[in-house]
Amino acid sequence: MRGEPILRRAAIAAMVAMFGGFTLVGVAGAQQTAEPKNRVVMQVSDGDAAKWNLALNNARNLQADLGAANVEIEIVAYGPGLGMLKRDSSVATRVDEALTSGVKLVACENTMRAQKLTQPDMLPSIGYVGAGVVEIMQRQQQGWSYLRP
Amino acid sequence: MRGEPILRRAAIAAMVAMFGGFTLVGVAGAQQTAEPKNRVVMQVSDGDAAKWNLALNNARNLQADLGAANVEIEIVAYGPGLGMLKRDSSVATRVDEALTSGVKLVACENTMRAQKLTQPDMLPSIGYVGAGVVEIMQRQQQGWSYLRP
Amino acid sequence: MRGEPILRRAAIAAMVAMFGGFTLVGVAGAQQTAEPKNRVVMQVSDGDAAKWNLALNNARNLQADLGAANVEIEIVAYGPGLGMLKRDSSVATRVDEALTSGVKLVACENTMRAQKLTQPDMLPSIGYVGAGVVEIMQRQQQGWSYLRP
Repeated sequence: MRGEPILRRAAIAAMVAMFGGFTLVGVAGAQQTAEPKNRVVMQVSDGDAAKWNLALNNARNLQADLGAANVEIEIVAYGPGLGMLKRDSSVATRVDEALTSGVKLVACENTMRAQKLTQPDMLPSIGYVGAGVVEIMQRQQQGWSYLRP
Repeated sequence: MRGEPILRRAAIAAMVAMFGGFTLVGVAGAQQTAEPKNRVVMQVSDGDAAKWNLALNNARNLQADLGAANVEIEIVAYGPGLGMLKRDSSVATRVDEALTSGVKLVACENTMRAQKLTQPDMLPSIGYVGAGVVEIMQRQQQGWSYLRP
Repeated sequence: MRGEPILRRAAIAAMVAMFGGFTLVGVAGAQQTAEPKNRVVMQVSDGDAAKWNLALNNARNLQADLGAANVEIEIVAYGPGLGMLKRDSSVATRVDEALTSGVKLVACENTMRAQKLTQPDMLPSIGYVGAGVVEIMQRQQQGWSYLRP
């Protein structure tokens, strides 16, 4: 029986790692023991209102198709895309609707600093992240899908 | 011997989950027990024929470099990118060549509805998905790489 | 005791696969047994110096926020984006600074061939890959995050 406790710990560690704390990435057609979560991080880095509208359309379509309760969406605005979340944004009304529907919208504080903006210059109820690119990287590390509208 | 059957089930479940139904994402230089499959989902959402040609070039290069049999490519056209797959598309001939070479090209039915288009308005032999963004998200959940040409 | 060696091998295989050779993709808030590595592959495929500068800004922000030693960054230039790494590039000085700071910049040899360029036509100290799109796909397979500035 020598080695058995190690064996037991190995098996338990395996189960914890797989079922307790990690997303299992399923393959089409394969048997799946855990449904992958629907989570999408969207990058908005263009200073182009058409792209801002497209991002908001994409978010709305994801919610319409999957049910708003079944998908987490985070839109990260940075660089030239920060304008989407400024107080004078041309899509301010749609941003507000998206927030109400459960979409998370976050502004990059690095970009704000570069543009000498503070939170009162931005739309209410949005969130903030230190660095937009770091957020986008980390979300992917956490298993989120990436979309650049 | 109490607990052993549970132990055995745990170990078997671990093996099934890891080797039976899931893609293992290998790390460069690490020992790999399963070769990652070459699968790329490409997003075409720009109403710009240069981007459509770039997507088709990228697909051709993937096939040339890896061998067409060794890579699965799916191009998802939606939003302003849907024009790539319309019957009057400026890249219709190249789309046909790509289909013949094994590339899958799919149109977003949400976008078609918004543009009042039906399947006879689209190029023959293409596929359809309910929502382009959902398809792109799900492919990533299934382990496909993402490319936005 | 029949079957026990198989059981032991299963548990050991599980541990090797999970802890020895693979990146575990952690879920926000979940207990994590391995810190995900910070690795980002950036796609530069636009013939637009503003995009080249944005890519270099993004790389600098990733390094500033995480510490240059804590993030691996690879910028892949291909198609119309190859100009970023040509000897006469408008961002040559910044490319040199990025290389010095540890960012890897690689040019697509497929694109070079198409443009009848050889290594003496390119900036010094950059790297080369056979096909930019294959590189971007493989990095994602290896667990790198994707960013298209």
